Formats: sequence, structure tokens, C-alpha cells
Amino acid sequence: MNKSRIITLLSDFGNNDVYVGVMKGVISQINPNLNLIDLTHQITPQNVTAGRFCLMNAYPYFSDGTVHLAVVDPGVGSKRRAIAVQLAQGYLVGPDNGIFSGIFSQHPIIAAVELNNYKYWRKSQPSSTFHGRDIFASVAAHLASGVSLQELGNQINPETLIRLNIGECQRKTNGVEGCIQYIDHFGNLVTNIPASCVESKPWYVKVNNLTIPGCTTYSDVKMGEVLALVGSHGWVEIAVNSGNAQKQLQMRYLDNVQVLFLQSY
Amino acid sequence: MNKSRIITLLSDFGNNDVYVGVMKGVISQINPNLNLIDLTHQITPQNVTAGRFCLMNAYPYFSDGTVHLAVVDPGVGSKRRAIAVQLAQGYLVGPDNGIFSGIFSQHPIIAAVELNNYKYWRKSQPSSTFHGRDIFASVAAHLASGVSLQELGNQINPETLIRLNIGECQRKTNGVEGCIQYIDHFGNLVTNIPASCVESKPWYVKVNNLTIPGCTTYSDVKMGEVLALVGSHGWVEIAVNSGNAQKQLQMRYLDNVQVLFLQSY
Amino acid sequence: MNKSRIITLLSDFGNNDVYVGVMKGVISQINPNLNLIDLTHQITPQNVTAGRFCLMNAYPYFSDGTVHLAVVDPGVGSKRRAIAVQLAQGYLVGPDNGIFSGIFSQHPIIAAVELNNYKYWRKSQPSSTFHGRDIFASVAAHLASGVSLQELGNQINPETLIRLNIGECQRKTNGVEGCIQYIDHFGNLVTNIPASCVESKPWYVKVNNLTIPGCTTYSDVKMGEVLALVGSHGWVEIAVNSGNAQKQLQMRYLDNVQVLFLQSY
Repeated sequence: MNKSRIITLLSDFGNNDVYVGVMKGVISQINPNLNLIDLTHQITPQNVTAGRFCLMNAYPYFSDGTVHLAVVDPGVGSKRRAIAVQLAQGYLVGPDNGIFSGIFSQHPIIAAVELNNYKYWRKSQPSSTFHGRDIFASVAAHLASGVSLQELGNQINPETLIRLNIGECQRKTNGVEGCIQYIDHFGNLVTNIPASCVESKPWYVKVNNLTIPGCTTYSDVKMGEVLALVGSHGWVEIAVNSGNAQKQLQMRYLDNVQVLFLQSY
Repeated sequence: MNKSRIITLLSDFGNNDVYVGVMKGVISQINPNLNLIDLTHQITPQNVTAGRFCLMNAYPYFSDGTVHLAVVDPGVGSKRRAIAVQLAQGYLVGPDNGIFSGIFSQHPIIAAVELNNYKYWRKSQPSSTFHGRDIFASVAAHLASGVSLQELGNQINPETLIRLNIGECQRKTNGVEGCIQYIDHFGNLVTNIPASCVESKPWYVKVNNLTIPGCTTYSDVKMGEVLALVGSHGWVEIAVNSGNAQKQLQMRYLDNVQVLFLQSY
Repeated sequence: MNKSRIITLLSDFGNNDVYVGVMKGVISQINPNLNLIDLTHQITPQNVTAGRFCLMNAYPYFSDGTVHLAVVDPGVGSKRRAIAVQLAQGYLVGPDNGIFSGIFSQHPIIAAVELNNYKYWRKSQPSSTFHGRDIFASVAAHLASGVSLQELGNQINPETLIRLNIGECQRKTNGVEGCIQYIDHFGNLVTNIPASCVESKPWYVKVNNLTIPGCTTYSDVKMGEVLALVGSHGWVEIAVNSGNAQKQLQMRYLDNVQVLFLQSY
């Protein structure tokens, strides 16, 4: 195969320090020919829920065999498992804390292992605070270079992998009930209600006691006004035209959101 | 040819979300061997003028055959054209909104096409909000992989491509009249007056009722004082020693600036 | 050799403008097959001390033959030397202002040259403000492409290379005396006292009149409380659980820090 293998990187390390550079150095020492693509390193520190959403949205756009390395890891040094997972379209490497559970909700798992074969770690005694460098980057580089998933550790039951408690939205008689699964850096509030739920009928959104019109574009409302629309990622989101919905509505991750259909108004 | 082909990326997507990563995924699905170089993704949202300046300054430093992918696209979903342009030293792919017009002012156009051959799009029905992913990234990857410009769509008259109304500075009897074409993140105010205009004689700058000395380096004035000098990009700029000229002078994009020569003072 | 050669890049240019992209363009014009890895471009402007720490921490994680290009260069345009340095595990290219002196403190220098062979510069008359583009990027690309160090300029005595006045911590009867050598973007205060100094006995830290407990993890103290621990980079650091130690303690680069052992309390 003449194709460059790709590793994507996602973390909450930010771009101000050299943590990300160090992970790339570890990878390059194992295989300098891998193609490294940053998803983002600006996940809000320790926000596994935000990391879950970003990975779920990026995953479908990468080639078969891509290795996705994700390090948002508040449990580093505790007993949370370190894992690698095989899917039809790529591999996942990171902590077993739910960060991959958005991908799991959309794509079947082929196999999963716990990373306990320290032959593929950077050193057999990793630091207690930087498994991104000492375990995950090293394992991802080996996996992208042809080491098989089974070599990396003991096989584990995919059912036991941690899922975040976001789950699927629920269809109701008059609409759909869901929650906020992501807040982007413009303050847009992305729900877990997919576009398919609002394609057939006129709709609006209810949060707290507020009624928000279902629109197709920001400019359907005046500047500073709240609207709901389907974002480019394919989910219903709540936004403010030229403003910040998160600040204006004071909403948070997992807050309840209802889509209601107009004919049943 | 054994050389890696390069795609540069410039946008206003920021680095907090996965939009840029998704564009790179789309490219890597088409050709994982391309060499991707970020120019910046921190263009102020929808500031086509700023994107124009950044592209114009970066363009000369890249190899023949480089593809420059630019997505600052407030008109996405409207009828603005999607274009690809061929120049002696590379290709441009993005919206026809003037973002490439700085390059056009310095380099002749060989050919231009409207991107209407959806065979080279990611899907024939693109989203209405993310042509960076659905059209531009895909087209750029095909172009960098050897597809000819003519394959990508109908040829269009280069004269019809949108130019931003910045234009050239005007030489006057006693000096040069121009405007602010870029404000960098230090608050330096970059004019459209090139270094060649101020090389022969002592000079100063006039904005509003303020007289600003023409200097060679920041430390020619005291800390907190305003000066003018030629920046590393080759344009006259207005700065404050250890300060922020944009805030101190309250100037904006396209505001008038006059360079005057001292002997005519 | 079939391996991609790597150039790492570190600067204080930020990611908002195209300065970094321009340096990568210069490199790609010389050799488009090099593998470019960003360490960080968010060094506080002109903070050579911070750049020194970041380079020292990243260096060991890269392959033999990697070229580290560093541009934090407040003396650009003055008479400070431009240098390239050869070490067992890689090369350094940048200004002779102490930015590499952390690496020098841990790894022997094989050879050093002053960059005065302008055959390997982008142009023989560099700008006075952007040697990153006009000298360093160009030289780094040639070096990573096989040009020998000796070709790049006159050999210089490694003893004459600038070292920052941080130096080694001093072991005392009851402890160790050192200083703050880095402040990360969370406000953690990283000292120049290595982990090996605090491995054998219970310890605490004294700064000004404050006594700070030596801990193993953030959660050893209550939220908002100050602690000291060994960071993942291997140095004693002062932190605040869920807070910002730099702001809370009002400490600065090079401020004195004492580690004291408990039995001698």
C-alpha cells in the first residue's frame, strides 16, 4: 500500500504549550511517515462531552484505516481503562471515559482491547498525568504502522465500554424531546435532535418558557434575536443572529430541549 | 513527479471546532498523500477584506502548483459563484467574493472556471452552510491530484471575477493617498501603500488630524507613542510602540491614510 | 533513506496572521517533502525564557536528525548572531539569544556555526524584521534536505553561545533553591527543580512567606488552594487546584523558590 496512513489528534491541551508537539514527536520517533491531522486541541479542559461530539462529527469524513487519537482525560492516573477500538472505517485510541460514545451510537464496534501490552507504550512506567504521551500516542503510531489491534492488549467486551448519558432524543406525540450535546465557540447550542426529525413539518423549539422559531438561516430573524435551525453538522441548534445563545439563554450541557410541530400548537 | 503537492488552507472557522479537521478529512479521503499547510483559520468571522490581505501576502512564498483553498464565505448559500483560478504560480479555490482580489492585483490570471461540475464535489447536493466541506475541499483535492481546471466547470471571463473596492493607492504631488487594508492581531494598521512609495525621501503619515512620524523601527518613538514604518510584508503600517494602534486611534478597515513627504511640509 | 525528515517550528507569531504559513511556504519551495510539526506559536511575544523551556521539554521526544526551528527574536535586525547547532539527536536553527540554552544544559553540543553563508538564505538582503522567513526557514529546509552544518557558515566556539541566566538549582543542607523557569497558560508556575530532588523525602515549598505542601496530585488540596507537585515535564511546579497560581501568588519568571524537606522542618 502506497497510501499515507493518517492519525487525527483531538485534546484539551490547547495550543499554547508543547504537549501536542510532544505527542507528535513520540509518533514521529515510531514512524516519521505518518500523516498527522489536528481535529482540535481547544476542547474546554476535561469536557469529555464536548470531545464526544467533535469526534462523532469528524469521524465520517476520514478514510478507512485512519486512527483517531483522543485525549480529554480527567481520570488519568485513576483506574479508568485505556482502550483501542476497531470500526469499519477506522480505529480509536484513548481513555475509556465515554469520549468515543458518540461514534459508538452511530457505528458498530468490530473489536475493542484494553491497552495493557506495555511493549507498545513509550515506557513501561508511564507518568500518572500524561498518558497522551506515554501510552496513547505511542499505541496510535504502532496501530497506524500495521500492528494489529489484538497485539495491543486483552480483548474486552464492547458492551462494557463507557457511554455518556446523552442517549437518543425521544419522539413524542407532538414533537421530539432531547438535550444540549455541544456548545460551540460562537455560543451556538447544538441539540441531539437530528435534521430528520424536523424535515416534514413546520416546527419550533421550547426551552424553559421560551418559544423559539424553527428557521432555515440566521437572517430569518432580526439581529440579537433567538432562532433554531439545522446546523451544517446535521443537528437542530439554537442560535442568536449575530449573538451568543449560550450567554443570552444561560443554557448548559445536557439541558432539556423540546421540538414541537406547529400543526399541533 | 515525486514532489508532494501542497494545499494551503485559510478560513474564519477558528481552531476550537472540527470544521477545519473535517475539510482535511474530505481531502484525505480523495488523496491521503497531499501536503496540507494552514495559513490561518483565525480570520475575523466573515472579514473577506482581511482574508484578501493574508492570501495576497502568503501567495508568493509557495511553490508552483500549490492549491490555495480559502473559505471566508458570508454569501454561502446565496448565488455567489464558487470558483477555481489558475495563475503562473498556483491555483485558487473558494467563493467569488473578492477574497482572491489582492492576488489578482499583483499576478495575471491564466484561466478561471465556475465550479459547476458536481462530479468533483463531495456530494451533488451540498449543504447550504458548509461549501468548504462539500465543494471547495473536494475540488481542491482533485485539482492538487491532477484533475485539470477545465474539468471542474465552465470557463468564465477573468474580468468578471469580484474585486474588493480597495484598489491601488494614488500618488499625489506631495505624497500618496491610500487606505487601511488590514489590521493584525497586535492592532497594527496596515495600509495599501507599498514600501517603494517611501524609499526615496523623508516622510510622515497623516490620518484625521494626526501627524505620525515615518520611522524605521518601533523603538524610534517612546513606548505608547504612535509611529509609521514599513512592515515585513512590504506595506506602510501605523503602529504604537508596545501598544495597540487600532484601539488608540479608533481606525477601521478602508479608512483614509495619507503619506506626505517632508520637504513639502 | 526513506524516512521523512522533520522540521519542528516554535515562535511567538501567534496563529492569527500568516507569518507561520509564510515560513512553511519558504520551506516547501526548497523541499515540499519535509514533514512540518508545530510545537507552538503562542509563546508570549518576545519571551525567550518561555521559548527556552518549551524547546528543552520537546527536544527529547523527536527523532535523530530532526531540525528544530525557533523564532522568538526580539533582537532581530540588531547584531545578535543567527546560528545553527548540531547535537546527537538533532539540529537547532534560530537566533543566538539563549532560546536554545535549556537544551544546551542537558545535551552536549557537537558543533555550531554562524549563519553567514547567504547562499542558503531566501535572499542575500534579508528584511530587518523577519529573519524567520528570510534566513531561518530557508536554512532549516536546506539542513533537513542534506546540506551539511559546515556549509551554512563559519564554525563558532560552542562556549560563546548565549545562555540565559537561569542555571541549575542549588542543593542546600535542608533542601533545594531554584527559580520559576516557565509559566504555562493555566498559570502553573514551573520551577527549575527536577523531580529527582524531591523523590526521597517528604517536602514542601517556600515562596515569599508562604508554605506550600508537596503533593502528588491536584486533588490533594481543596479547590482554590495552593499546592506543589511534580508536573508531567519532570519539574516541581506550583499550582492552584482549579485555579491560577500565577495570578493568586503574583509570581513572575525567575522569582526565587525553595524546596525544603520535612524532617528538617
